[in-house]
Amino acid sequence: MADHSVTFDTARQAVQVPTGTLVSEAARLAGVEVGQPCGGQGRCGRCVVQVTSGVVRRRSSLRLSPEDISQGYALACQSVVEGDLWVTVPPQEKIERRLTTDRTAVEIAIPQDYDPNVHQTLRRWTLNINPPRLDDQTDDLSRLQTSLRQKARIEDIHVSLSTLQNLGSVLRTDEWQVTAILDAQVQIDGHRVAERLITLIPGHLTDMDPLWGIAVDIGTTTVTCWLVDLITGEVKAQVAEYNSQISRGEDVISRIIFASTDTGRLELQQRVVDTINQLVIQACKRANANPAEIYKATIAGNSTMIHLLLGIPATSIRLSPFITGFNQAPQFTAGQLGVSIHPNATVDCLPGVASYVGADISAGVLASRMDETDKLTLFLDVGTNGETVLGSREWLVTCACSAGPAFEGAGVQFGMRATKGAIEEVWISGPGSQHPFEPNFRVIGSSKPSGICGSGLISLLAEMFLTGVVDKSGNINLALAPVTPRIRQGEHGPEYVVAWGSETEHGKDIAVSTVDVDNLKRAKAAIYAGFTVLAQSVGVPLELVDQILIGGSFGKYINVEKAVQIGLLPDMPWDRFQFLGNTSVQGAYYALLDWRNRHRVRDIAAQMTYIELSADNSFYEAFTSAMFLPHTNLDSFPSVVAAMLIPQTLTASPPRK
Amino acid sequence: MADHSVTFDTARQAVQVPTGTLVSEAARLAGVEVGQPCGGQGRCGRCVVQVTSGVVRRRSSLRLSPEDISQGYALACQSVVEGDLWVTVPPQEKIERRLTTDRTAVEIAIPQDYDPNVHQTLRRWTLNINPPRLDDQTDDLSRLQTSLRQKARIEDIHVSLSTLQNLGSVLRTDEWQVTAILDAQVQIDGHRVAERLITLIPGHLTDMDPLWGIAVDIGTTTVTCWLVDLITGEVKAQVAEYNSQISRGEDVISRIIFASTDTGRLELQQRVVDTINQLVIQACKRANANPAEIYKATIAGNSTMIHLLLGIPATSIRLSPFITGFNQAPQFTAGQLGVSIHPNATVDCLPGVASYVGADISAGVLASRMDETDKLTLFLDVGTNGETVLGSREWLVTCACSAGPAFEGAGVQFGMRATKGAIEEVWISGPGSQHPFEPNFRVIGSSKPSGICGSGLISLLAEMFLTGVVDKSGNINLALAPVTPRIRQGEHGPEYVVAWGSETEHGKDIAVSTVDVDNLKRAKAAIYAGFTVLAQSVGVPLELVDQILIGGSFGKYINVEKAVQIGLLPDMPWDRFQFLGNTSVQGAYYALLDWRNRHRVRDIAAQMTYIELSADNSFYEAFTSAMFLPHTNLDSFPSVVAAMLIPQTLTASPPRK
Repeated sequence: MADHSVTFDTARQAVQVPTGTLVSEAARLAGVEVGQPCGGQGRCGRCVVQVTSGVVRRRSSLRLSPEDISQGYALACQSVVEGDLWVTVPPQEKIERRLTTDRTAVEIAIPQDYDPNVHQTLRRWTLNINPPRLDDQTDDLSRLQTSLRQKARIEDIHVSLSTLQNLGSVLRTDEWQVTAILDAQVQIDGHRVAERLITLIPGHLTDMDPLWGIAVDIGTTTVTCWLVDLITGEVKAQVAEYNSQISRGEDVISRIIFASTDTGRLELQQRVVDTINQLVIQACKRANANPAEIYKATIAGNSTMIHLLLGIPATSIRLSPFITGFNQAPQFTAGQLGVSIHPNATVDCLPGVASYVGADISAGVLASRMDETDKLTLFLDVGTNGETVLGSREWLVTCACSAGPAFEGAGVQFGMRATKGAIEEVWISGPGSQHPFEPNFRVIGSSKPSGICGSGLISLLAEMFLTGVVDKSGNINLALAPVTPRIRQGEHGPEYVVAWGSETEHGKDIAVSTVDVDNLKRAKAAIYAGFTVLAQSVGVPLELVDQILIGGSFGKYINVEKAVQIGLLPDMPWDRFQFLGNTSVQGAYYALLDWRNRHRVRDIAAQMTYIELSADNSFYEAFTSAMFLPHTNLDSFPSVVAAMLIPQTLTASPPRK
Repeated sequence: MADHSVTFDTARQAVQVPTGTLVSEAARLAGVEVGQPCGGQGRCGRCVVQVTSGVVRRRSSLRLSPEDISQGYALACQSVVEGDLWVTVPPQEKIERRLTTDRTAVEIAIPQDYDPNVHQTLRRWTLNINPPRLDDQTDDLSRLQTSLRQKARIEDIHVSLSTLQNLGSVLRTDEWQVTAILDAQVQIDGHRVAERLITLIPGHLTDMDPLWGIAVDIGTTTVTCWLVDLITGEVKAQVAEYNSQISRGEDVISRIIFASTDTGRLELQQRVVDTINQLVIQACKRANANPAEIYKATIAGNSTMIHLLLGIPATSIRLSPFITGFNQAPQFTAGQLGVSIHPNATVDCLPGVASYVGADISAGVLASRMDETDKLTLFLDVGTNGETVLGSREWLVTCACSAGPAFEGAGVQFGMRATKGAIEEVWISGPGSQHPFEPNFRVIGSSKPSGICGSGLISLLAEMFLTGVVDKSGNINLALAPVTPRIRQGEHGPEYVVAWGSETEHGKDIAVSTVDVDNLKRAKAAIYAGFTVLAQSVGVPLELVDQILIGGSFGKYINVEKAVQIGLLPDMPWDRFQFLGNTSVQGAYYALLDWRNRHRVRDIAAQMTYIELSADNSFYEAFTSAMFLPHTNLDSFPSVVAAMLIPQTLTASPPRK
């Protein structure tokens, strides 16, 4: 075997290694430190290096984007030397930043053709109005109307009482120079109707001044808000917070029950409005904007969430035959709903499909563009509810199941949202390793951990399963307690300690218990059962699916391998999976920006066929089968069987080193 | 001269009298009592009898309608015997009732062609909606929409948030049988647009159930409300009350000043809304209706009143160049304004013309139909403001002046509205009579007097002037004090006692002082100056006017003779005058009933030319000339000169008996 020279930028001199040597081994020889928290399994991405010249063969490039690879990035533990190399080792903090940028801040592509003058319903006009004289006593309102007619060719505007109350003073503040902000409904042919004067501002604003709108997703567990400049289309701030309704019930059913009295209904309405208002303040702080200058909001969310936002009883959603009060909500103003943006701002709730397939799913389909592709697509929205859409340009079918809030970090003792301090990925050393059952983890924001987010929980559960810490039924293997102090009897039954109190932010051990595992298992089983039954119901074998698009609260960086390993996702080639992040807020954003998307989402909602899972037993059967790790039927999960570090029959003491 | 036999129904036997004998004299001879409080001057109408057979010649038929005359009614003191007569003497109480029925309760003719299914914008539909099933999970709102589409061919309805909040419960209360009440805007071609679901009621209402609307006139001094059944078109209750804003200023100018701060503006808005709400309660009590079942309101009033109702600053109305915030108000809902009828009820403020010619005048023109006649018409609205419209089908010009609230009973010490206990007509014995300067008066509702209403004040001032109690400058002639105790020095200067405390409801003397006379004089002078300047400004001599239509707060029974005698109205043949009562509320009623009238009043407002009286000195000059009784220029008042019981030069002691 030929030797090759490998030169690291941070090393004093080059090292000579034979063909086939791992880059990480070459680094060790050169005295260069590369991080390997996952123990060289190619799973954590911490050993990434940049090959600036020369050839390596990548055995795995997990966690690297095609762009990364084209720029020469490689995982040191998964790449072998095949020629002379010049290698740059990025500073550790740069790697951290690349991997851990605020997971909620998804990079959003502004639609390329976006033109606010064409696609935005909100319009801004600067007007120079003729002041009145004794021989021209035309009233203020008519003066404004005439000016809008001349400048904007708007024949008829609706003016709210509050605008009328301020009209005289606004017109006279800057000597009859004003900026009018109007919204309208745009018909499918582009014709604007029902022009509504949202506000009139003294003086002239320019195109350099932002025109604010918000896109909101009301999840059962998490509410997300994007602040958007409607002139450029740019998302200027992304914020998310737990829905404060959560203290009154974790899932939609318990919320509906809580809202069945008038006071309960009013309280839940107030809570979600408060949550939105807090998010608006946060987002405005980040973007240096004024909430009162936000003139339009689009809101997505499941049907129960939208009902509760509007203060509409949701009882009929819960009871057979499961009927929503409405699917297509009328437009309201922010003032009517108590949302603290401009009181005349348009609030447009996107349309839902059925009681358990709401506007979040219509918005998700819009964002995923599955309604525009010829590829047979399975769209999963993983949140407190698991909704599935199957189809393509030709047809769309959908169903829903209640997954619970585990993947959103709620309903799990140390669960949390994917923010700073959340453990987002975990590796556990196998029973045969030097430190059996010892975990390694990555924390968002390079801080001490304070909990585990959804992707961290999936990762943790997969590793626990693969290493035998839990068995296929989800029982934590207490028999391993003598081998590792991390497995122990806890307050809530057997538990596995992920981080000791000495390592954590709050000084308490972070552990996952059998109860937590059970909640996670139920969540993943419900989702898996949902899409398998849906595919069965339309007679489409899952193998025919060309792409699986996954929306939900995970962000974009979920590890498909892990999700397959716990049986949340089907065992299919990884390149068919794509994580889209929060597609509900994305859809709301697209509808906020462009009236054509508003029409599209209406069509999507109207055309989707809803399959009622409660109609027969097939869902229950599929759910029961999926209540194992990864599934009763291991034949469906060949890649998982191959990855299992110990056979599932093992229940006795672990192999000794 | 031939003798004739006159038979009274209440007399024992007939009497024989010669041709030309007064019927009242025949009655005296027959021992039959007929009332003659005015002393046989044909002015009080109390001596009315019915000639059931035979011929009389009527010298005057004042206070009798053409219908009365056709039925044989005659004034006994003004009718002479010309053949054998059979005469019925109505019981006194029946005469009282005929003359004194609540003056605010004007008899309103329902437009003959009124068809609620054609002319009313408000529509009621009874619906049988298909209940949902597991295999038909259509949402509640879509079910309702489908039903309305099928039954009423309504494609698109606007549903308010509150209706949506109650929708599910209302639909399920009576097993999906509901009554929908909708309002729409009807275009000039009869096409209905912007259909709005006002409410949905469980069960089926029938055409026998009333459909309530209100017509409101907001006067500066008095607010009037009519409760109307929109199915039959009938006015079911008429109520009026002082505008409670009056405690914050008697005329529009002082109200505008009071409203120039935010708190003042909010207070005045609240006050007028409170007044309306109290009237709604009163009216509903009378008609046994529920305020929450009133679904539509049309509101007329002067521009300041409409601005204040809507909480819109009126400052620019007061300051040159005198600009209103709006003339054509958008439609609102009752809930937005705090009006306590159904919160979704349409509130439609009628359009105004200018700062001082408001919706009350557009409504008045609508009610008077002067815009549809070829006759050259002078329309006067006598209220706190005096507005005048001159024109016909071809053209309309208008102007306004501030008259003050004297004719509405405010700003006069014992002034009151035309309700029970108000002195509504006064006669004073002349200086040469048996009881010089002793008054006779008629009280509304046959009760003890507690004050004097507008028509009573006009009547009183005219009588005081004709008998020399006041001179042409309006000074009370204290020189007469030795002759009658009724003229005396009072707290507010010289005064004339109309009723002694022993006769009155409250036990206090009812007197009119020089200050009161001055206020009345200013009011009449402003109105007279207004229409004379308007006529001059378009070069139309007053003599060419074919009819003078008078609206305002007097009711329908004002005495033209008296109004001319004080110089409020021009000295023209009496048959050219017509009193229409409160034309503002009448116009609001017509617009409430029929969408065609709503279009008409918009056209009236848009087409009227407003003449700004402040543009030059002519109004001030005309006002100064009119500040005398009846006027500086007596040549313009020949009938008054003829009626004066003493020449105006007389200032010394009266002639003795």
